[in-house]
Amino acid sequence: MAPIQNSAVIFAEIPSDYPVPGKHLKYVKDRTIDLDNVDMQGGIVTKNLVISIDPYMRGRMRSAEAKSYSPAFELNQPLTNFFVGKVVKSENEKFIVGQYIYGFGGYEEYTVHSKAQTDLLQVISEERIQLGLPLTTWVGAAGMPGQTAYHGFYHIGEPKKGETIFITGASGAVGQIVGQLAKREGLTVIGSAGTDDKVKWLQTELHFDHAFNYKTADVKAELAKFDPLNIYFDNVGGDQLEAALGAAANHARFVECGMISQYNTPDAHGIRNLILIVAKRLKLQGFIVSDKLKEPSFHQEFYSKIPKWIANGEIKVKEDVTKGLEQAPEAILGIFQGKNFGKAVIQIADE
Amino acid sequence: MAPIQNSAVIFAEIPSDYPVPGKHLKYVKDRTIDLDNVDMQGGIVTKNLVISIDPYMRGRMRSAEAKSYSPAFELNQPLTNFFVGKVVKSENEKFIVGQYIYGFGGYEEYTVHSKAQTDLLQVISEERIQLGLPLTTWVGAAGMPGQTAYHGFYHIGEPKKGETIFITGASGAVGQIVGQLAKREGLTVIGSAGTDDKVKWLQTELHFDHAFNYKTADVKAELAKFDPLNIYFDNVGGDQLEAALGAAANHARFVECGMISQYNTPDAHGIRNLILIVAKRLKLQGFIVSDKLKEPSFHQEFYSKIPKWIANGEIKVKEDVTKGLEQAPEAILGIFQGKNFGKAVIQIADE
Repeated sequence: MAPIQNSAVIFAEIPSDYPVPGKHLKYVKDRTIDLDNVDMQGGIVTKNLVISIDPYMRGRMRSAEAKSYSPAFELNQPLTNFFVGKVVKSENEKFIVGQYIYGFGGYEEYTVHSKAQTDLLQVISEERIQLGLPLTTWVGAAGMPGQTAYHGFYHIGEPKKGETIFITGASGAVGQIVGQLAKREGLTVIGSAGTDDKVKWLQTELHFDHAFNYKTADVKAELAKFDPLNIYFDNVGGDQLEAALGAAANHARFVECGMISQYNTPDAHGIRNLILIVAKRLKLQGFIVSDKLKEPSFHQEFYSKIPKWIANGEIKVKEDVTKGLEQAPEAILGIFQGKNFGKAVIQIADE
Repeated sequence: MAPIQNSAVIFAEIPSDYPVPGKHLKYVKDRTIDLDNVDMQGGIVTKNLVISIDPYMRGRMRSAEAKSYSPAFELNQPLTNFFVGKVVKSENEKFIVGQYIYGFGGYEEYTVHSKAQTDLLQVISEERIQLGLPLTTWVGAAGMPGQTAYHGFYHIGEPKKGETIFITGASGAVGQIVGQLAKREGLTVIGSAGTDDKVKWLQTELHFDHAFNYKTADVKAELAKFDPLNIYFDNVGGDQLEAALGAAANHARFVECGMISQYNTPDAHGIRNLILIVAKRLKLQGFIVSDKLKEPSFHQEFYSKIPKWIANGEIKVKEDVTKGLEQAPEAILGIFQGKNFGKAVIQIADE
């Protein structure tokens, strides 16, 4: 077989604010891979089917010298992220051609995973495949964002029935799951989002107790309609974090999952009311779900519950699927502008 | 006996920034008390010997309508705070004339404590008196500020040998104890203070590994000389909090004890790098020691250790004692301007 196309989205230049498609993130069509002669280094080759877009990727668009929790993207190489692919070649006996794989892959049609890299991949078991979820969901509610929601809500939020929670980015990949878990646990759930459509969906489909458009509403006034907050699940930071500090109850827990409002601004918004951390005895706790994923018991707990709840409709999932890698740079920019409605994901190929 | 003088410091007016002696806080000489005919309401009368000055008092200089963790001072009444007094009259069998009492009392020569109020007072036992500490120390290192240091450092800071801690307000009532506990536990201890004298004392007397004057030094550069911070013990907030976020190690604990730099400024300093809470998985935890004081086991743990360590010189104590209630308004203002060197306290009378 002759070399075949292996188009990709390349990290071409480090952005200082928003990543510009065609400049910082480039779709490159004329790459190839020779499946017959590729050096697998004891690993496997996957045909990539879906790949996730997540806010944390902005942090990886930096110089390799700047240390952070997640490695910088390599310049002139494909972006990488959580993906689902199908094994098309294998030199590793743990992986069989035809199996579905979840883990880290490239923004490209085919990825070569060396032996060392395959250690971090997991096979999506036949039992899970039988649940019939779209493959996109395994990188969304049933993948890293769902794990983020689950861990952050239960282990850092420490929810108790009857409490009040406020979630920013509430229609996003993580927020939508947190809100539904919170309803399930008997909390009063308030969410904010950036369009009226998203707000309506939170109210009518997810049955949030209250939802509002943070761009047009007075956040403080909206929060003042309810009891003081026992949990703030933060995906956004900035003004809304400041409002949540003001609206917090004594001993409230702030689950610091992300601050997307701050990722693309060299001059971040200054938060002025941190004195309330002392006066109200607040706990603000940041976390990265990958730390938690090292615990096998967490894996088991998560996968024994969430995929089933999605399959039987107890948890609803809203995904924003973009078809084709060539659309990916725009779709990535879109999540920082709030253009996605639901979990953003790229469908690279249909099987 | 005729009525005798009972001079006091009165909360005369609510300040908008710094409390001005003679305006917001007034020394009033011509008050009296008739010890023979005073209505004790089933309680006791104390002759007040020492009374504490603490930063949290600024939060009580507000309108009674504004809720916070500690009640507002009553307008036209004496300020109140932790004190040591001697029982001069008693209608409550738990208290005997001549005993030393620790608890809440007034900025006045004599205080009447009703039956309900005496429930919150404790007798300083004969065993403790035998340690020979100055009475001032029972409202300082062996009182609320010492308890604040102990609880915050051990239970929120979760120190481990070999870690690095940064303490702001390091020569103050709480900071000086935290630093010595941290040295005792084998941590690398960095402290900041606001005069060169204080810095020198931290280095030569308390043997901090490093100390600097935050008014003249570059805080970020000073912190960069050492390993990333595992614990930040915050008494100050503002710029130094921002610098500590920048210098923090992953999984660092921020013990949010106070933010004295923010208490007298209507426009607080905006902290711009809170995104590091997520990226470094930080925990910022506010606390009020009075919550912890409800646990009898904490009382016992604290009093079984700290007073002895002070008495035998293992913990050194620096106190800034002002004599006489008439000097108290200036001394109170002084702690917000960093004029005190060590734990600020008023000596009302010598026995």
